[in-house]
Amino acid sequence: MATRKIVIVGGSAAGAKAAARARRLDQQAEITIIQKDPDLSMAACGYPYYVGGVFNDRNLLLATPTGVTRNAGFFHKTKRITALVETEVTAIDRQKKALILHDLKTDATSELTYDKLILCTGARTNRPPLPGLELDGVTTLLSMQDTDYLRTIRDAQQVKEAVIIGGGLIGVETCEALQLSGIQVTMVEFQDQILPFLDWELAKLTENHIAGKGAQVITGQGVQELRGTDGKLVAAILQDGRKIPCQLAVLAVGVRPNSELAGAAGLAIGSIGGILINEYMQTSDPDIYAAGDCVEIRNLQTGRNVLAPMGDLANLQGRVAGENAASENRAAFPGTIQTGICKVFDFNVGASGLSEKTAKAMGMTDYETVINAGSDKPGFMGGKLLVSKMLIDIADKTILGYQCVGPGDVSRQLAMAAMAIQGKLSIDAVANADLPYAPPFSPAIDHFIATAHIMQNKLAGRFKGISSMKVWQKYQAGERPFFIDGRGPDEYEQLRLGIGEKLIPLGALRERLGELPEDRNQEIICFCKISLRGYETALILTAHGYTNVRVMEGGIMAWPFAREK
Amino acid sequence: MATRKIVIVGGSAAGAKAAARARRLDQQAEITIIQKDPDLSMAACGYPYYVGGVFNDRNLLLATPTGVTRNAGFFHKTKRITALVETEVTAIDRQKKALILHDLKTDATSELTYDKLILCTGARTNRPPLPGLELDGVTTLLSMQDTDYLRTIRDAQQVKEAVIIGGGLIGVETCEALQLSGIQVTMVEFQDQILPFLDWELAKLTENHIAGKGAQVITGQGVQELRGTDGKLVAAILQDGRKIPCQLAVLAVGVRPNSELAGAAGLAIGSIGGILINEYMQTSDPDIYAAGDCVEIRNLQTGRNVLAPMGDLANLQGRVAGENAASENRAAFPGTIQTGICKVFDFNVGASGLSEKTAKAMGMTDYETVINAGSDKPGFMGGKLLVSKMLIDIADKTILGYQCVGPGDVSRQLAMAAMAIQGKLSIDAVANADLPYAPPFSPAIDHFIATAHIMQNKLAGRFKGISSMKVWQKYQAGERPFFIDGRGPDEYEQLRLGIGEKLIPLGALRERLGELPEDRNQEIICFCKISLRGYETALILTAHGYTNVRVMEGGIMAWPFAREK
Repeated sequence: MATRKIVIVGGSAAGAKAAARARRLDQQAEITIIQKDPDLSMAACGYPYYVGGVFNDRNLLLATPTGVTRNAGFFHKTKRITALVETEVTAIDRQKKALILHDLKTDATSELTYDKLILCTGARTNRPPLPGLELDGVTTLLSMQDTDYLRTIRDAQQVKEAVIIGGGLIGVETCEALQLSGIQVTMVEFQDQILPFLDWELAKLTENHIAGKGAQVITGQGVQELRGTDGKLVAAILQDGRKIPCQLAVLAVGVRPNSELAGAAGLAIGSIGGILINEYMQTSDPDIYAAGDCVEIRNLQTGRNVLAPMGDLANLQGRVAGENAASENRAAFPGTIQTGICKVFDFNVGASGLSEKTAKAMGMTDYETVINAGSDKPGFMGGKLLVSKMLIDIADKTILGYQCVGPGDVSRQLAMAAMAIQGKLSIDAVANADLPYAPPFSPAIDHFIATAHIMQNKLAGRFKGISSMKVWQKYQAGERPFFIDGRGPDEYEQLRLGIGEKLIPLGALRERLGELPEDRNQEIICFCKISLRGYETALILTAHGYTNVRVMEGGIMAWPFAREK
Repeated sequence: MATRKIVIVGGSAAGAKAAARARRLDQQAEITIIQKDPDLSMAACGYPYYVGGVFNDRNLLLATPTGVTRNAGFFHKTKRITALVETEVTAIDRQKKALILHDLKTDATSELTYDKLILCTGARTNRPPLPGLELDGVTTLLSMQDTDYLRTIRDAQQVKEAVIIGGGLIGVETCEALQLSGIQVTMVEFQDQILPFLDWELAKLTENHIAGKGAQVITGQGVQELRGTDGKLVAAILQDGRKIPCQLAVLAVGVRPNSELAGAAGLAIGSIGGILINEYMQTSDPDIYAAGDCVEIRNLQTGRNVLAPMGDLANLQGRVAGENAASENRAAFPGTIQTGICKVFDFNVGASGLSEKTAKAMGMTDYETVINAGSDKPGFMGGKLLVSKMLIDIADKTILGYQCVGPGDVSRQLAMAAMAIQGKLSIDAVANADLPYAPPFSPAIDHFIATAHIMQNKLAGRFKGISSMKVWQKYQAGERPFFIDGRGPDEYEQLRLGIGEKLIPLGALRERLGELPEDRNQEIICFCKISLRGYETALILTAHGYTNVRVMEGGIMAWPFAREK
């Protein structure tokens, strides 16, 4: 059997993984990685943490766990993989099954043939058509060069103010990194919320947290111009004319797939710009695979193609592509449920599956949501807050989506949710799930289970919820339902909404029923810190004949609007 | 409709939850909790952390998150539930549907009728037939009284040495609490391993960690006598005659269900001593429910009844019993997959589903296991070690069990595994699972996914594994396979097994093939720190014609035996 020639274009996450996997399956193959950048197998998701000083050894971004740099020598010695760095692929000749290479160091051109080709060309930052992008001080955070640039700025301590354009994952992580570096950050997001994978309420809670850490967050507002003096950035001008002084601007308005090479070679490109692949990560040419940020993958819940430029998915896809390129199409990559997580200051923020926004955009109506606030551990173990939102299919009660934010252990919540969604578990299954419980890790009833319990109560008509958003809209519209805060006086003194609520501690409610509206049909909205006492308040009122009683979901802890105190 | 009388016997986890749930569903019912102890709704799983000084406010064990003590007054005011504490139920008259109560304070006897009864009588510590159990200094850790006793001992700083009899969950948690209190602890376990829900190797790694923290762990050895002077404990005598001086002994040899009251009333009791219930938590008398540590529940994987005295399950069962007692049998509790977790010093330890031990005991043969060692996060984010063992059904590749130990984020691993097992996910599904990834939370390929990948490779015959246990047995039997350690010289200098292994760094292997045995059929066992390089070593050797090459699973990090260095 002839030696198989496998060529991989791109040597970051998907490419390096594909090459390593191909080698493990075929010790004889000639495997070559072509990489435009000077570095290989970079831990790109770690860039913000190096910029922000979470760690200071640059080589950790490029090294194995034992400290060996993953350079061409490493790939050659340990894996017998040839890595050609600072080399660009300018064209694919599918007839000849050859690549045209351009050596960026020597400017030489050459040809390299393949039996199987894997395209892992990644993505690049969107560049909005803004005046001033060429100014000194304007950057992205997508490459080692960007990372080195920002780290130098951090270390030089000259830049005092920065603007981040875009409030997605990279924007938020960069915001933290720069703010922790002593730079006053303003993050500007064109949409009405940051972190678009979240629904508005949870995004707003996160925004409040970021603002509480000193960074300014401006939503619903674009940047119209970056202004400079002597070629150096001095300010960002917002669409409303506001001028934000800044010596640094980071573009973080999303990425787009590098699919031009594939497109020029006649491979099928999807409507959202990524290379089209089948479940085997195979493009429209059966000898060419593609993986990572350059492809479109299937959203397993909607059936639609999406761009999901995440490091974990790139690795998984690279593994599948590498296996199939090295043997037969045996491995399959099914798709994504768009799970994501990030840390921003003391908040952990993530989502898995459908948001309500996505469900609505798809025209779904047969769903229900609930918001829950609670602790990740018992109070005596230093429990921290979690605020979550669950979305289910009413017909079969399966969990379709889960979002969670807060200082608590969001990672465990999201990992569970991702498994529950992929396992198509219903809330009835989750309601009695046998989870790892001990006080250092969770309360006796885990927050995820508690959320399923509230959803059960809601479906059964026992828990009549209303979101803080709807309460706020009512309030803004001048409506004044009878609000009951069911907490104690001490709690009320420390923290309160101030929307005209009446404080009736749950323990005193039965004696103070006389203070309630005489009209049993008057609208009443109950809450407390997390709305467990609010729920019990509502049950008592309903038992006493009140017909229009609801619980504000998640209570004060899930209230993202201004408070009196 | 007449007011329903619901009586709950026992007011700890299951009982308090059942009562609260019943109230939420029926605001009219007369609900009474009968509690023998003076306290109610105790956070019993928190006892070791109060004893160990993780927190110092005793009331946190008895209070709501806002600091209100959950006493009879609280239950009456907030929930209109009557709680009779320090009151014992001496008999159930099922004909009359009445309980005979004995007031422990006044010695008075009375009768209380019920429409629906819920038995939440809990469990008590097994007391082995040891001479000396009556000595001053011998205790258990199951009640608030025990907790107060041990906390007093901690604070008094008089006791220097303690023996813990039993190495299960409570034993291990108590070991940590006392050792952290400055007491020299010896934990004695009759079986050949601590923490019986783990397989031996992972239990041994945990034992090594505990020993590294200064506590002495003796396995495969019982206590034959507790010896005293003037009524005070002075030593524990082991079966082999060893004398362990101690002023404190804690019995932690498991618990048994308090099912005598139910048994005396003629309710069906199972063969392992718990009250028998159906999926509605209903006993053999349809008007009597039972929940918590006093019942037998179904293991969802084996179909057999088990005792699973865990705080989370007690709460979930109590919720189901409370709902059904207050309305109709609408809620069901399916059973357990025996998920458990604990923290001991800097190790987190847990399991979900079947262990290999259990699978073997059931006569299962169509299963496969793999041990994996890896990091919970990238190294640059301070990643910590996880060692796990996965057990799958070979026929359909579903995950049947998962154990994980180490300083890393075991909680996320186990929560995922519990969901994956309950969702009947196969390793192929987990191998491409879309999990929440960002460097503060996980590596790009989560440890759980990586374990599924190794299992895939093992099933495909690409990864030929051997457990450290089997390697050790071979070594002890005098066999000397050719061992290859694939790490670098620096790593070898710091840490090594010393079983005659040859150090051949992976990167040098292809040039040093001449140092390998000439006989291509000689047995070769490869490893490295976690056996990823060991795996690549094995693949290269196999490609060079070696026919008997295996990888030691989990590498040095999963080696629980003595090392040279």
